[in-house]
Amino acid sequence: MGKSVQHLRINGDRLWKSIMDIAEIGPGQHGGSSRLALTEEDRQARDLFVKWCKNEACSVSIDDMGNIFARRPGTEDTKLPICAGSHLDTQPHGGRFDGIYGVLAALEVVRTLNENSIRTRAPIEIVDWTNEEGSRFAPAMIASGVYAGLFDKQYAWAQEDVKGITLLDALRDIGYLGQEPCGAHSLGALFEAHIEQGPVLEEAEDQIGIVTGGQGVKWFDITVSGQDSHSGTTPMPNRKDALVAASEIVGMLNRLALDNSPHALATVGCLNVSPGSRNTIPGSVHFSVDLRHPEDEGLNRLEQAMKKNLHDISERQGMDIHLEPIWHNPPVKFDPDCIDAVREASDRLGLRARKMISGAGHDACQVCRVMPTAMIFVPCLDGLSHNEAEYAKPEDLAAGCNVLLHAMLKVAGVDT
Amino acid sequence: MGKSVQHLRINGDRLWKSIMDIAEIGPGQHGGSSRLALTEEDRQARDLFVKWCKNEACSVSIDDMGNIFARRPGTEDTKLPICAGSHLDTQPHGGRFDGIYGVLAALEVVRTLNENSIRTRAPIEIVDWTNEEGSRFAPAMIASGVYAGLFDKQYAWAQEDVKGITLLDALRDIGYLGQEPCGAHSLGALFEAHIEQGPVLEEAEDQIGIVTGGQGVKWFDITVSGQDSHSGTTPMPNRKDALVAASEIVGMLNRLALDNSPHALATVGCLNVSPGSRNTIPGSVHFSVDLRHPEDEGLNRLEQAMKKNLHDISERQGMDIHLEPIWHNPPVKFDPDCIDAVREASDRLGLRARKMISGAGHDACQVCRVMPTAMIFVPCLDGLSHNEAEYAKPEDLAAGCNVLLHAMLKVAGVDT
Repeated sequence: MGKSVQHLRINGDRLWKSIMDIAEIGPGQHGGSSRLALTEEDRQARDLFVKWCKNEACSVSIDDMGNIFARRPGTEDTKLPICAGSHLDTQPHGGRFDGIYGVLAALEVVRTLNENSIRTRAPIEIVDWTNEEGSRFAPAMIASGVYAGLFDKQYAWAQEDVKGITLLDALRDIGYLGQEPCGAHSLGALFEAHIEQGPVLEEAEDQIGIVTGGQGVKWFDITVSGQDSHSGTTPMPNRKDALVAASEIVGMLNRLALDNSPHALATVGCLNVSPGSRNTIPGSVHFSVDLRHPEDEGLNRLEQAMKKNLHDISERQGMDIHLEPIWHNPPVKFDPDCIDAVREASDRLGLRARKMISGAGHDACQVCRVMPTAMIFVPCLDGLSHNEAEYAKPEDLAAGCNVLLHAMLKVAGVDT
Repeated sequence: MGKSVQHLRINGDRLWKSIMDIAEIGPGQHGGSSRLALTEEDRQARDLFVKWCKNEACSVSIDDMGNIFARRPGTEDTKLPICAGSHLDTQPHGGRFDGIYGVLAALEVVRTLNENSIRTRAPIEIVDWTNEEGSRFAPAMIASGVYAGLFDKQYAWAQEDVKGITLLDALRDIGYLGQEPCGAHSLGALFEAHIEQGPVLEEAEDQIGIVTGGQGVKWFDITVSGQDSHSGTTPMPNRKDALVAASEIVGMLNRLALDNSPHALATVGCLNVSPGSRNTIPGSVHFSVDLRHPEDEGLNRLEQAMKKNLHDISERQGMDIHLEPIWHNPPVKFDPDCIDAVREASDRLGLRARKMISGAGHDACQVCRVMPTAMIFVPCLDGLSHNEAEYAKPEDLAAGCNVLLHAMLKVAGVDT
């Protein structure tokens, strides 16, 4: 890489302004964003993004899952493109950075290359993946999932929002049902820059997370079956209080994860009590379990320990506890060369960086199954995300974008 | 009491048939009853009950809370009437016996007196209290509460159902807004026969509960405030999981009551988790607490122990725990002479009886503040109530009704 390229830097102010411009489309009530996938707001954000890409002389193609690819040619244009991106859709009460940053950081890379007349050997592409959040159409990361062969396209098209509108109709409605079959658009590598959505970088005062993979996730539903009865007339020893048993399970899962820190995570996020009356002992409690671990073996150990403890609690409390597996997403490892490109770029830029695992799911965690992939994390305030108060500092966003620039240049090659 | 009166027995088959006849009005989907207060179904049940009372030559008066009093004159008719009754309304998925038994047992007493030409000194009355269940209009026992001076009548009239219909309009709509001011209808004593709604009599194989009072109740709402965050990106030690703290509280309350068995009861019946998303750590949990104890002092001890434990959990978990008192119903003691009349009647009839406290609230627990009162419990299957599967054996219902007959005769006096 020539000296001029080594000193190349993105324009942090321009990046920030682009993020703020997109945030004006579908603003939230409290300073964040509310731009659900394939809505009119998403269409406007896509249109603006496509306009910006065309302004940079990129050719734009859209696949039949609505994924947008914007291409800047390389000097060896038959090489597979080196791509970066993320998603423009948000949670209903989402932030301005989750996803958007990754798309616009890739655009900023292209703008920087253009204004400095840098020619890469492999083409450079920017991607916007459809419906990453899963807030409008379940499951999350559906379009990158179809791209990676994890979901069937017919299944994805048939998913309905709460009003019964299918994903396919929503694509048509906003004019983003492309011709290219999803998955046919070949790429040489994918980078995704993203806010961390957790507190690790901020607490460590690091600027860059060199993301080496994504942790595995197992989701379960648990139903505890006790016996409804009157709170005033049922002696304590006669009760089969499903909430007492469920509470013991919540505590058990929390201790299990704490005992296996720092890698294990366990969360009960939803819990419904039936019949839910102030003076009736709950006869039934239904709740979710989210187990995570960066290693397959660790995830299995957590699951086995949970099952043994559930059995013991069921015996002791004399209540039936039904465990139903809902979803299993195995851990993924990113590509060593792509990870190395991120590490080298961080080193060259003199940034404080740490290797880490992605705690959340990302499009990169889907696509990494079919191509070399890595991610770059930047800190966000208080680790807060999926919240309108989500915030990342302009200088951290710029630092991550510079890492993206240099990692992409490394992998794409520069024609000096 | 003369020999003929000592051998007087009610007609168990007639009592059972009357209960089944009322159960045909507003039948539930699963063999129970769905006859909410002041609905068309309640009107039909009231009309049938009034017709039956008039067939027994009773004079019927209705007060301005819709309470129905049916009077059988005494030979000393200026004496205050000795009354028995309960309520004809049910839960939405209620049983055929809760309340109804008490009203129709009182009617069966009058029928038995009539067919045997027994004359009592004091008049005998039957009462149907309005809206005991509280399912349509909150709070429960509202009309007996107004009668006893515990609630203001204007407040009670203004209560609205889910459709916004006031209790006053509902009384008018079904033609049961009477002229007599609620509470002005003086009584000498009140007996209420009722199914136990708990498992104590059935487990002890006793037939009669001689109810000596009602336990005290304190209701609270608790809100635990933690911090919403992502289940995949928030390390275990960084979490402020409101559900983990709430679960610890549920377990603490259960242990507290068990440690103070058999008198103390503690129940969490409602619990809501916010935001309630599978992959978000709950930032807030809101739940109800129902504490009961037969003694004021015991109830206060429970409350103090709860508060101390909440303070400790709040400190340890680093989360705010807000406790809000919702309702306090102090313990009540029934009248020694009325209790004695029930005990004597049970003894004379050779029934297996035990003294006990009422775990649930009843109209008798309101009215006992202004007149001599007692209750008679009979066993119900598996202690089940507020459930369509609620069941009581005909022979137990008949036994309880015979106790009611003889207790009333004792207090009213027989003109031999």
